[in-house]
Amino acid sequence: MTLTGNMLIGQQRIAGNREAIRGIDPATHTVLEPAYAGGSAAHVEQACALAWAALDSYRETTLDARSEFLEAIAHEIEALGDELIDRAAAETGLPRGRLLGERGRTCQQLRLFARTVRNGEWLDVRVDTAQPQRQPLPRSDLRQRQVPLGPVAVFGASNFPLAFSVAGGDTASALAAGCPVIVKAHSAHPGTSELIGHALARAVKACGLPPGVFSLLYGSGREVGIALVTDPRIKAVGFTGSRSGGLALVQAAQARPVPIPVYAEMSSINPVLLFPAALHNRAQALAEGFVASLTLGAGQFCTNPGLVIARKGPALNSFIAAAAERLRHSPAQTMLTPGIFNAYEAGVTALLENPRAQLCAEGLRSTGPNQCQARLFTTQSSDFLADHSLQAEVFGAASLIVQCSDDDEIRQVIERLEGQLTASLHLDDEDLEQARALLSTLERKAGRLLVNGWPTGVEVCEAMVHGGPFPATSDSRTTSVGTAAIHRFLRPVCYQDFPDSLLPGALKQANPLRLRRLLDGQREAHNNAQ
Amino acid sequence: MTLTGNMLIGQQRIAGNREAIRGIDPATHTVLEPAYAGGSAAHVEQACALAWAALDSYRETTLDARSEFLEAIAHEIEALGDELIDRAAAETGLPRGRLLGERGRTCQQLRLFARTVRNGEWLDVRVDTAQPQRQPLPRSDLRQRQVPLGPVAVFGASNFPLAFSVAGGDTASALAAGCPVIVKAHSAHPGTSELIGHALARAVKACGLPPGVFSLLYGSGREVGIALVTDPRIKAVGFTGSRSGGLALVQAAQARPVPIPVYAEMSSINPVLLFPAALHNRAQALAEGFVASLTLGAGQFCTNPGLVIARKGPALNSFIAAAAERLRHSPAQTMLTPGIFNAYEAGVTALLENPRAQLCAEGLRSTGPNQCQARLFTTQSSDFLADHSLQAEVFGAASLIVQCSDDDEIRQVIERLEGQLTASLHLDDEDLEQARALLSTLERKAGRLLVNGWPTGVEVCEAMVHGGPFPATSDSRTTSVGTAAIHRFLRPVCYQDFPDSLLPGALKQANPLRLRRLLDGQREAHNNAQ
Repeated sequence: MTLTGNMLIGQQRIAGNREAIRGIDPATHTVLEPAYAGGSAAHVEQACALAWAALDSYRETTLDARSEFLEAIAHEIEALGDELIDRAAAETGLPRGRLLGERGRTCQQLRLFARTVRNGEWLDVRVDTAQPQRQPLPRSDLRQRQVPLGPVAVFGASNFPLAFSVAGGDTASALAAGCPVIVKAHSAHPGTSELIGHALARAVKACGLPPGVFSLLYGSGREVGIALVTDPRIKAVGFTGSRSGGLALVQAAQARPVPIPVYAEMSSINPVLLFPAALHNRAQALAEGFVASLTLGAGQFCTNPGLVIARKGPALNSFIAAAAERLRHSPAQTMLTPGIFNAYEAGVTALLENPRAQLCAEGLRSTGPNQCQARLFTTQSSDFLADHSLQAEVFGAASLIVQCSDDDEIRQVIERLEGQLTASLHLDDEDLEQARALLSTLERKAGRLLVNGWPTGVEVCEAMVHGGPFPATSDSRTTSVGTAAIHRFLRPVCYQDFPDSLLPGALKQANPLRLRRLLDGQREAHNNAQ
Repeated sequence: MTLTGNMLIGQQRIAGNREAIRGIDPATHTVLEPAYAGGSAAHVEQACALAWAALDSYRETTLDARSEFLEAIAHEIEALGDELIDRAAAETGLPRGRLLGERGRTCQQLRLFARTVRNGEWLDVRVDTAQPQRQPLPRSDLRQRQVPLGPVAVFGASNFPLAFSVAGGDTASALAAGCPVIVKAHSAHPGTSELIGHALARAVKACGLPPGVFSLLYGSGREVGIALVTDPRIKAVGFTGSRSGGLALVQAAQARPVPIPVYAEMSSINPVLLFPAALHNRAQALAEGFVASLTLGAGQFCTNPGLVIARKGPALNSFIAAAAERLRHSPAQTMLTPGIFNAYEAGVTALLENPRAQLCAEGLRSTGPNQCQARLFTTQSSDFLADHSLQAEVFGAASLIVQCSDDDEIRQVIERLEGQLTASLHLDDEDLEQARALLSTLERKAGRLLVNGWPTGVEVCEAMVHGGPFPATSDSRTTSVGTAAIHRFLRPVCYQDFPDSLLPGALKQANPLRLRRLLDGQREAHNNAQ
């Protein structure tokens, strides 16, 4: 398709009337066509009105119809073919192989949510039947199901132009829950956003759904974002990005006359703990794995291993030497945007100028624009404990090794950490007891704990938690990746003494959806998924 | 036992050093012994340190041990015998029969949570096993369980001195989730709180749990409450009370360096819709049911029917006449506290002075102190739509009937409503289609919908939702009554590639807790509850 530079309000292509954004090839600084004129508060108003009009009909789609819609989106994305990959590569500087993988993940994610919707467990149906003879008072018939919160605003992320953007995890889980979605496209990949937006709109049309189920807006400043988050018809927000950006949305959402939940995935340095035996037995292999994870995708992952914690000694010295050696040969990589590159350089400069951190190694330089040169720093645990700024996320391929004198210092460093998306433990059998002693602390700090793995790479599945205590996210009670993400956009409603004809299908006595309900405290046996 | 006037910090009786509160018999204005000197921020610090110290051990209690603890609390409350009922009656003016029922409900609630804990479904265990051969990348072994958020601060309610207070629903669900609890006692029933607090502390001791699992603080002003909500070791808050009180806690919690969730159940006028056929067929019976619900417990329920919506006409006139007649004979009742009585009188005065509301009937007067005289008002839908203040909750036996000209006005009135705990529909068969047309709107407005019932009376069971959109609560995604309340105090953690020996019991490969896990997307069959 020809890119138009227009927004999508339902099925309508609408031109914005504010300052335009443009895709930029970060590898060459080439400005890409077309220009995407930004939307205004009036466009937000239009999109919200349409989403609101779509809510009652969309939220009562059958499980099958909603699943088919999610599958149709995946199909339409695949049908975009090379055009999508080419445009995304041009706008992000990401390698084609990575983008092909991310497209696969995005479509698999939509299909996984389709299966989740069909299964119906997310409805959490609970039935307590009437007990008219109960003494001293009879019990009413009470039935609970989950209903969607309402229209959801999604803010796409820069670093996953497909999997965390227009049709990414937030959109997929909100649509799965029965919520219309309005996406504010990330300015780093407007063309990719338009392509995906049209695929989504085609799926809406093909499935005969009301047009307001999906809209896509652009905007260079705060106008569109703040108008979206403060519109009374928006009932929840999904966001992946910087801490300052996430907190601004949280604040705007809380200041509303009727506050709404904001699921902001913000900032994490993903501590990696190297235990003594593992470090002693395989310092070289750990160093290789570490540098590979650190430099993957120029370090532009929320789960980038930005902090290593270990006990001082010859084994740690070997690890540091091996990591430094490897890092020195790691090529510079193009970062996603000039803004991200500048922020990376500023973060690195702060560390270079901080007397409590020592530069240990630098990756290869490159003369092109926006080239991320990897950096490895070391510090002492006493310095780390004394200087909170050493916990600041440097988004990119930079990491800090905290050298501790003893186990007590290791525990202190962990206790001092802010909330994290992940914490990784590298251990051998002899380390098990020491690791076990830290587990409850680590569980309080992070949403995902890994053993002998690296945090980059987030599987889309039932058991994933991509979340964690503040400031990793604004709401530790949820995940933004994996099927449990659907619960972010639901709330329970109880129906008391309803005549069967007035009950929604999920709650009718005959259980026409064949859900595995909680019936008088017992879980029913049959279910759609079998 | 002899009431001491002391707080309970763990197993220690501690005397406060701030202004004292005292129980007052609202029926006689008699001041009751002993005085309860208020705690200070230093006491909060002590209680939080103790709760924090208890967390890691309490949260890893076995399902059986935690269940037995909840059952032990119920047992200890029952063992208080008449002393509890006598003191609660003296402090609240509530009839003994009501208090006996409430004690039964409180103990049943603890036992229901004990069964819920034992069943283990709340752990929401998800296991995605490793796929080492998967292309292009192997899949790790990923396992998810729920862990407790951490210590919880609970603010008791005035109107349920047992079921929504020291060992009420918030405490029961937080303890069930594995969270230590610090209760700030409601100043309206300090003696009842002390009795229950000691029962709870005895259960802690009898079960061999760390003392910090439970503490009980008193305080007349804001010091204790704000210190609790802003202490970094407190990870969630449960509150039932006024809108201003709830919003103050929400604000304090959001202003923390690390914000925490506040579950505040605040304000609801619980609209009752009377549909034409029902109104035509049984205006008299509806009026009787309405006045009984309105005046129950002097109207001091969050679910009191404070708003009636119906179409103008002879049938509604009959209903109004019958309700007015009944109300005029309804005796005055003692309210819980002078403060609640004064607020009721102020709310009624505002309606009396509002030209958009007309007084329709008054209940019987009484000369004693704090006597709630029931009031019934009427208004026109146009006036209701024009004056938001007519939606203000008047806590007590006052209600407002909104007379609508047509169905469209009824819909407008409903659309204009703030979020509610409940909405009740009185309908006969001929009304079904009209009711159906309003259902999706009502679902957006309320947490519980009732047909041909009255909202007072909240069953403690699996399917109950005692919650609803703001301002009924600060978080519509949950309930404060019923077993689903446990989820308020949990967050998910994912364990990736953990050796079996390091996994928590709930996640071990052999499934020693016999949980019905979600295993590779399929629900396992066996479970503890069978």
